[in-house]
Formats: sequence, structure tokens, C-alpha cells
Amino acid sequence: MELTVYLAGQIHDDWRDQVAQKAKEKNLTLNFVGPQTDHDLSDNIGENILGEQPGGYYKDDAASSINNLRTQVLMQKSDLVIALFGEKYKQWNTAMDASTAVALDKPLILIRPEELIHPLKELSNKANVTVSSVDQAMEVIQYIYK
Amino acid sequence: MELTVYLAGQIHDDWRDQVAQKAKEKNLTLNFVGPQTDHDLSDNIGENILGEQPGGYYKDDAASSINNLRTQVLMQKSDLVIALFGEKYKQWNTAMDASTAVALDKPLILIRPEELIHPLKELSNKANVTVSSVDQAMEVIQYIYK
Amino acid sequence: MELTVYLAGQIHDDWRDQVAQKAKEKNLTLNFVGPQTDHDLSDNIGENILGEQPGGYYKDDAASSINNLRTQVLMQKSDLVIALFGEKYKQWNTAMDASTAVALDKPLILIRPEELIHPLKELSNKANVTVSSVDQAMEVIQYIYK
Amino acid sequence: MELTVYLAGQIHDDWRDQVAQKAKEKNLTLNFVGPQTDHDLSDNIGENILGEQPGGYYKDDAASSINNLRTQVLMQKSDLVIALFGEKYKQWNTAMDASTAVALDKPLILIRPEELIHPLKELSNKANVTVSSVDQAMEVIQYIYK
Amino acid sequence: MELTVYLAGQIHDDWRDQVAQKAKEKNLTLNFVGPQTDHDLSDNIGENILGEQPGGYYKDDAASSINNLRTQVLMQKSDLVIALFGEKYKQWNTAMDASTAVALDKPLILIRPEELIHPLKELSNKANVTVSSVDQAMEVIQYIYK
Amino acid sequence: MELTVYLAGQIHDDWRDQVAQKAKEKNLTLNFVGPQTDHDLSDNIGENILGEQPGGYYKDDAASSINNLRTQVLMQKSDLVIALFGEKYKQWNTAMDASTAVALDKPLILIRPEELIHPLKELSNKANVTVSSVDQAMEVIQYIYK
Amino acid sequence: MELTVYLAGQIHDDWRDQVAQKAKEKNLTLNFVGPQTDHDLSDNIGENILGEQPGGYYKDDAASSINNLRTQVLMQKSDLVIALFGEKYKQWNTAMDASTAVALDKPLILIRPEELIHPLKELSNKANVTVSSVDQAMEVIQYIYK
Amino acid sequence: MELTVYLAGQIHDDWRDQVAQKAKEKNLTLNFVGPQTDHDLSDNIGENILGEQPGGYYKDDAASSINNLRTQVLMQKSDLVIALFGEKYKQWNTAMDASTAVALDKPLILIRPEELIHPLKELSNKANVTVSSVDQAMEVIQYIYK
Repeated sequence: MELTVYLAGQIHDDWRDQVAQKAKEKNLTLNFVGPQTDHDLSDNIGENILGEQPGGYYKDDAASSINNLRTQVLMQKSDLVIALFGEKYKQWNTAMDASTAVALDKPLILIRPEELIHPLKELSNKANVTVSSVDQAMEVIQYIYK
Repeated sequence: MELTVYLAGQIHDDWRDQVAQKAKEKNLTLNFVGPQTDHDLSDNIGENILGEQPGGYYKDDAASSINNLRTQVLMQKSDLVIALFGEKYKQWNTAMDASTAVALDKPLILIRPEELIHPLKELSNKANVTVSSVDQAMEVIQYIYK
Repeated sequence: MELTVYLAGQIHDDWRDQVAQKAKEKNLTLNFVGPQTDHDLSDNIGENILGEQPGGYYKDDAASSINNLRTQVLMQKSDLVIALFGEKYKQWNTAMDASTAVALDKPLILIRPEELIHPLKELSNKANVTVSSVDQAMEVIQYIYK
Repeated sequence: MELTVYLAGQIHDDWRDQVAQKAKEKNLTLNFVGPQTDHDLSDNIGENILGEQPGGYYKDDAASSINNLRTQVLMQKSDLVIALFGEKYKQWNTAMDASTAVALDKPLILIRPEELIHPLKELSNKANVTVSSVDQAMEVIQYIYK
Repeated sequence: MELTVYLAGQIHDDWRDQVAQKAKEKNLTLNFVGPQTDHDLSDNIGENILGEQPGGYYKDDAASSINNLRTQVLMQKSDLVIALFGEKYKQWNTAMDASTAVALDKPLILIRPEELIHPLKELSNKANVTVSSVDQAMEVIQYIYK
Repeated sequence: MELTVYLAGQIHDDWRDQVAQKAKEKNLTLNFVGPQTDHDLSDNIGENILGEQPGGYYKDDAASSINNLRTQVLMQKSDLVIALFGEKYKQWNTAMDASTAVALDKPLILIRPEELIHPLKELSNKANVTVSSVDQAMEVIQYIYK
Repeated sequence: MELTVYLAGQIHDDWRDQVAQKAKEKNLTLNFVGPQTDHDLSDNIGENILGEQPGGYYKDDAASSINNLRTQVLMQKSDLVIALFGEKYKQWNTAMDASTAVALDKPLILIRPEELIHPLKELSNKANVTVSSVDQAMEVIQYIYK
Repeated sequence: MELTVYLAGQIHDDWRDQVAQKAKEKNLTLNFVGPQTDHDLSDNIGENILGEQPGGYYKDDAASSINNLRTQVLMQKSDLVIALFGEKYKQWNTAMDASTAVALDKPLILIRPEELIHPLKELSNKANVTVSSVDQAMEVIQYIYK
């Protein structure tokens, strides 16, 4: 049984590669999709396609419209969602993707460091499972196949 | 026509009172609901009802389960949602409530200061309308009645 | 039994007043809602609330975001939709509101002049009932009460 | 990952061929579906199958019932929708297909010339992304795969 | 607690009056809605409103479009549906309304004479409760209030 | 593009074979499913599996529960539904399957002889397309592929 | 704000009276609905209305069809559900009502004694909040109004 | 036609092997999924992945969150559900899975011994088909292919 997993969360380190590597080691037949991880491309895609915009707000809105279309297509293809929160940044897109998954009945695994237990408590309570590392998230997925 | 409005967002200042005051001045027949604004009560409600928990994580999970039930009941009663982001704090609950509103087809007005345009760009793009002040949000609602 | 009727369509003549007048004559307990009929206000509401925008496209997008929120709130309150097409203008909002009603399972009465039979044929086929005058539309609604 | 794209919009030029050509050049694994592009066939299909009808209205209604069935089957198979507005014609079917896509949570890319910014502003605001050329639309889709 | 009950089924005798009479005797706070019971009006409503049609098929289609709009409005207002089958007639509208109720998760009570057990067996199996008289149906509804 | 078609309707002649034959002649890649066409098996399947029942009503209810499960599985797999009414029999299952298809947003083609125009008028009006022969129904499906 | 609460669970003691008494003491504007609490009536309602059945299985099936209709009507009217498990009995109806509430997005409070923590762990994890007494459940509801 | 079947129910004997064996004998192209059948693993999976918990309740809640995610993924992949009740144990998970299947419109076959007719009567009435042995359940599925 193949499953498609949407990997929501920060795009500033290589955690998605770790996920893919673990899946390979565990021989899990998973397809991974997720947000655009090239940060500059993600910020500039609006102006890249639509041309220069009249200021920061408009540049951001143009980029986000294309990022949101991309996410909507890919999340609709997914069987479950992993959302990883790191120790830095606002990470509101991660919260948005995780909340959308819950509202659409997509099973959700939340990964967050211990420091974030308190501010993420309501979102954590809505997730199916909350863990604190990529390893644990992959053990949860492996358990589906056991 | 009466409308019920869920006021998602920070609970550290009196913006909900401002909203109610504006509604009164404009003679809008609105009912307001929202998250628990007594911060201590919101943090302690789990232990208040269920008794002492074995540590911070469990205390937080107990509280958040009750906060989430409260929000689910009240948002299901709402015709539209206002979500206000301030300049401080993580505000992941605001992102969660706003994203849930969008996924459930509840019309959404986002209020955010200019400093947050960039990190909130994808959520802002999903909202029906994004404004930068409570006054503007209330003018949007007033427009429904015009 | 009270019913709420969303009156989609052109805002350049007084057809909504005719509808209300007919309802009164027939003693039908109907509430009417619909798009903003003050054309200037509808075009300027974005800049009125959000301030000057950097050009026509942005002014239009700001206005339309607020018009769309207004329509979403009001159509969700409605039990059925009347959509009137006239002989002039593009009237894409009328097509948009009528199609949305069908997709959301809101019963739809289409009013269109004979000249528009051919270009509106697919939308007409999706409507519950297609008529060519306000009088006929009100007779259809009166029939619900018979 | 294969995606199926419904190409709503005018049937009077070869824009669908351009779309297919661009997809090929970019090596995108897309399947394209869309409305009947043989205009005469689309107008006559009702009488072709059901026999002569008693006048224009009935001929049109017969044809549109079959065109609507075709569109419903194909749009339900689609992962996203591109809707192109040109400079001529009423194009209410394009508005209808685009609005239906939004209501059914199908991601929507709108293509429209600058002349149509104002009359299409509400529909444009509902689309995920609005562009002004086929090239830009295909760059948006290409971005999903990046 | 008030409940609205849609009374689907034949329009050739006074069973709806019996239902209303029983409800009154039992002091049940029920509102009743249902299809048009004036048979001639139901058959002619299309031509009454839209004018003469070019033959029987078109007359019937015009009438049925208005009857279907009426039923859709009223069934959406209902909390449960009673569908009565009698011993005569095709009664396909009764089957249609009953099946629609099941598909829309409206609780359904089926009334049918013993002669019809076999041909109605699949529909009866989908209903919540199948009875053989109006009296029994009203006892089922009375039980909701006990 | 493969499509799965549910063939609702009478099981007393070979119309499903004609459908399959036409599909083959037209080179349409269709899969056909439908109700149990072995009439005796359909009537007896309850007692065959569950053992003798205490009378006709119970025998029928046991059989219909298994027939309904079968139909639910197969209709959920289908992309569109053809429902054929013949000149004889009650055919309430056909009406039930056709109505369920409409309520579940499955495109519906209705086949009925001219004699049944009047009693089937409301159901015909709800169908996407109504035709009077198997040939015409297959031409409608062929049109999807054109 | 009035809320309607469905009280699922055992019918062998007076816990529903305690709930109503607590609500009164706390001045909560709640309406309570729930399953039939007259055990004999609940078991016999099938035969009471439909007449004697040919054995225990058929008597039970007749009763349960009427009990299920009653529950479906009342749960659809409810804003939230309390499900209480006691120390005795199978209580599968309680599990059924609680699971249905979760699947229909009705907020759920589970009350269960400590002895049942292990066998109810999956259902408890699906509930919004799990408590061990009626008092605690009412404090949770009171918190909605704070 | 391949079908995926979720096998809900007790994990204390080899009934799932019997099911698979029967499917093989009957040449049915079925895929089977179901809950974790290694009882110890199912109880300990929370602590296995998340580490030691502060007591039985927390250990159970951790395990159940992972079991529930697993079930949600697998049931969403399923075309129908078989739920088997045995003579021992509380079996509330079986009731939960069966009720969830009904609420999500997944066809349901219930297997239960005669001793459980009375306490399972409401759930049995909601199932599509109720049988008393694995053999009978497999004959029902075989009938789908006939």
C-alpha cells in the first residue's frame, strides 16, 4: 500500500531529506510532497511569473496565491500530513497547513520541540499524534504498515 | 439580520471591547463569541476540572482539550470570523482558528499590523479580506448591512 | 414559513424593488438580500476602507474581496436564489452567484430575456427554473406557499 | 505525479493546443480535459441525439443538458481548473465552470486580458491565481512540480 | 421542540389531513410540508407561469421544474420525511423523495400496504422505519417526544 | 480515460448486453456495474446466506439488505449512472438508484419510453439527460470522449 | 446562547436528572435530549407499534429501527454530546452514539469511571474531553459560557 | 474490480486469517486492512515511540492516539467494512469502528453471535447486513462480484 505524505513545516534545514532517508531505510512505500523549499523561489514566484508588483505587500500576495494553489493541489493528493515546528521563525504556514489537514479529515502527526509545548498546546491536542522528533514521526508511519 | 462573529486572536489587550464598542456605535446587530480571554483560567482549566496532572505537558493537554471543545461549539455557531494578529507572541491559535474558518467555509477577516505582512502572506491570501485595524474590520462588517 | 431569497444580478435598474413590491402584494413572508446595489460604493469600497491602492487592478481586487465576503455571508443565510440577467453588461457576477448557488444546492430561479437564451443555455439548464420576467419568478415563489 | 487539468473557456481559437504544447516542452505529466471545442457539434448535439426540437429554446436546452453532463463527468476527474476569458463573447460558461470549480474546492487559475480586469474582479478574487497569458498559467502549474 | 415533517406520497386521498388530525390529537408540535396536492395545478403550473409549451413532453418538463424547486426548498427545511405508498399509480415521485431523504441523511418513515412489500423491499430496507398505516407512522413520531 | 458506469433499471431483458455491445462497437473504454440481474438469486440471496426467514416480509428484508450493500459499493465506484425504465413493473429500485445518483452528484442519464413521460416527469427533470433508447444513451456517453 | 445537549449513555440510573439539576444550579440555558430512558418501552416499542414479531431477533430489530430514528432526529438538533459509560452492561449504544458524534463533528465529552480507562482508550482519545464524573462534565459546559 | 476491506473487531483469535483464506478459495480480489492485531504492541506503541508515560492513563492515551491515526488512514482507503463481535471482552473499538463506517457512508457487514443480538440491536439495525459467521460475511462479499 502506497501512501502520500504532505510534509508541512519549516524550509530552513534538511528535515525532509531525513524523512525520506528514514522511509528508505524502513522500506516504506511513501511518496512525499510539501511546500516549496527553495525559500527565494517561494518569495519571488509571484513576481517571477506575474511581473514586478507595486511594493512588498503586493509582491507577497502574488507569491502566496501561487504557493497556496500549489499546497491545495498537493494536500488533496495526500493520505496524511506531518507538520514540523522548529525553534525559530513564526511558522504560521505550518500552523495553517496542520489546521487545514485536521479540518479536511487528513490524519496529522505534529513534530515539535519541548520548548514549544505550551504555545502549541491547542494545535497539538487537535493532531492525531504529537512527537518531538523526525524519528518518532517515522516510527508512527511505520506502525501503519505493521 | 443578526450575525454571530467569532473573534479569534490575542487575549492580551482589550481589542474585543473595542470591537463591541464599534458595533454599538454603528448599531450593528452582532453577537460576539471567542476564545477564553482570562489567560490564567485558559491555562488552568484542565487542572481546575480534572485535577492535578503529572507535569506541564499533561497540564497543557488537559487545558487545551477543554479550550478546543469550547472553540468548536462557538465557531459552529458563527456566521463569520475575525482573526487579529498582534506584534508579539506566537499566536498559533489565531492561525489555527483562522485556517479552520477557511476550511469550514466561514468568511474570514484578518487583522494584522504591517510588520506581519510577510510571515502571514499565505494566510492573508486565504482570508476573504485582510485589514490592519479593528476599525477597518468593523467597516467591512458594516458594509454587509449597507 | 419565512424564506430568505438572494437576488443576484444587475444593479442598474430597480428590479429588486419590483420583486419586493410583488412579494408584498402577494403577502409572501420573504426576506431579501443581495449584492451591493450602490455601484460607486461597490467599486470604491476597497479604497474606502483600505486606503488608496497602487492602480486599477489593486483597487478592483480590494473592492472585490469585500464584496465577496458580503455575498458569502448573505448567500449562506439564503434558502433560494433568483439570478436576473439583463440585456447589457458582462454580468459575470450574476453567472458566478448563480453557479455557486447550484454547486451549494441552493434552489435557483434564472430570469433572462429571450435574446440571451443561446449564450445562457448551459447555465439555464443547471437552474431549477428559467423564466423571462420578474413576475414569473415571483409566481414560482408564490407556488411554494400554495 | 500525474495531474488532470480541466481547460474551461472560449472555444474559438487554439489556446488549448498552446497549453498542451507548453506542457510537452516543460515535460509536465498532465492530462487535459475540457468542454466540447467543436462549436457546431456543441450547439447541435441535442438534436443530433434526441431529434428535432420544436424551436430554438428547446434545441438549446437539449444541447446544454448533454454538454453539462459531459462537463460534470470531466471536472469531477480533474485536479485543477484553468479558465481563460478572451476579449469577445459573453463567456458565461467560462464563468460558470470557474465558479463551480471554486465551490467544489478545485484549485483555479484564471487567465484574462487586462481589458477584463474590472468586470471580472470578483471572480478573479475567488480564483487561486489570476494571470494574463497561457504562458503564465503554465508556469504556475510547472511550479507545482518544482 | 418543534419538528418539520415532509409528507411525500400520493396526492389522491386525504391522508395528509389524517396526519395533521392525529398530530393535533396527540398534541405534537409538528409543521407539515409536502408536494403540491392540487393535481391539476401541479400538472399545469409550468404552462400557467411560462405560457403554452409545444407539446406534452415540454408541458411536463416545465411543470416538473417548478415542482422540483418547491420540493427542494421544503425538504431542506424538514427534520424528517414520511413517504406513503398507496395501492395504485406509479408513485415514482414518492420513491424519488424517499431516496433523496435517505441520501441527504433526513430520517425516513415509509408507509406502504402489505401488497407492496416485495416491490418496495430495497427502499423499505433503506428507510429508518417501515410501517403499514398512518396511525403507526404518527406513533413513531410521538415516540420521539416521549 | 476509463469510466465506470452503473446501469440501474429493469433486469428482465438484455438491455445491459446491448449497452456493452454498443460500447465495444464505439471503442469506448467503459466498465459496467449494476444490480444483480439474476432475478431469483436477487430474491433469494437473503435466505441463501442467512437461512430460512419467518415469512415473506422477512425473506424480502434479508435479501434487500444484501442487494443494497452491493449497490452501495458499486455505485460509489461509478463515474456516472444510466437508469432505464421499461414499460412494465413498478421499477421503484430504478427510481431509487436514479435519485440516489442525483443526490450524490453522480451524472445521470435516464432512458424511458414515451409512455412514461408524464409519470416520470419530475425524475426526468432532475436527470442530466433524458433519452428514449439505449442507442441514444450510448451516443451521450460517446460524446464525452469526443 | 442556548445549547442543545444530547445525553448518550446508560439508562439504568438517574444521571440525566443530575445533569439537569446541575445545569439549573449553574443557570446554564441548556436543552437536553437523549435516548429513550424507559427501558421496557425502548425494548418493546417495535412490537407496540408494528405488532407481534416472529421471535426475539425480529422484535429487537423492529424496536431498534424506531430507537435509531429517534436518536438521528435528536442528535441532528444537538450542539454537543455527552456520553456516559458506567461500570456495568455492554453499553454499545453509548459507544455508537459517541462515535457518530465524532464522525459528524459534534463536540463530545466522555464520562467514564477509572476502571474503564483501558478498554475505552481509543474512544476517549477521539473525544474532545474525557472526565470521570457528571460534575466535571457540567463544569466543562459551564466553561463555554465563561 | 479490486476492493479494500477493513476488518474491525477482536484481535484474540485468527478470524482475519479465515477471512483471507475464504477470499482466496473464492478467488475474490480483496485487500484486507484492519487494526493492529499484536495486542501487546497495540498497548505499548505509545511508550515504545514516545517514551515512558507517567501512569496507566497516559500510557493508554499515547497508545490510542497512534492506533487511531493508523485506523483513520486505513479506513479512508477502504471500500467496505466488516465488524466482528465475539462473545467476550468489551469490544468498544469494534463498535466505534462500525459506527464510524456508517457515519462515513462505508458499507458495513456486522458479524455477531446469537447471544449478542439484544445488546447490539441498534448497531445491527444501522449496518447494511448482519450475519453470524465469517462464512456468511464472505458470501455477502462474493455476491458483489456475481
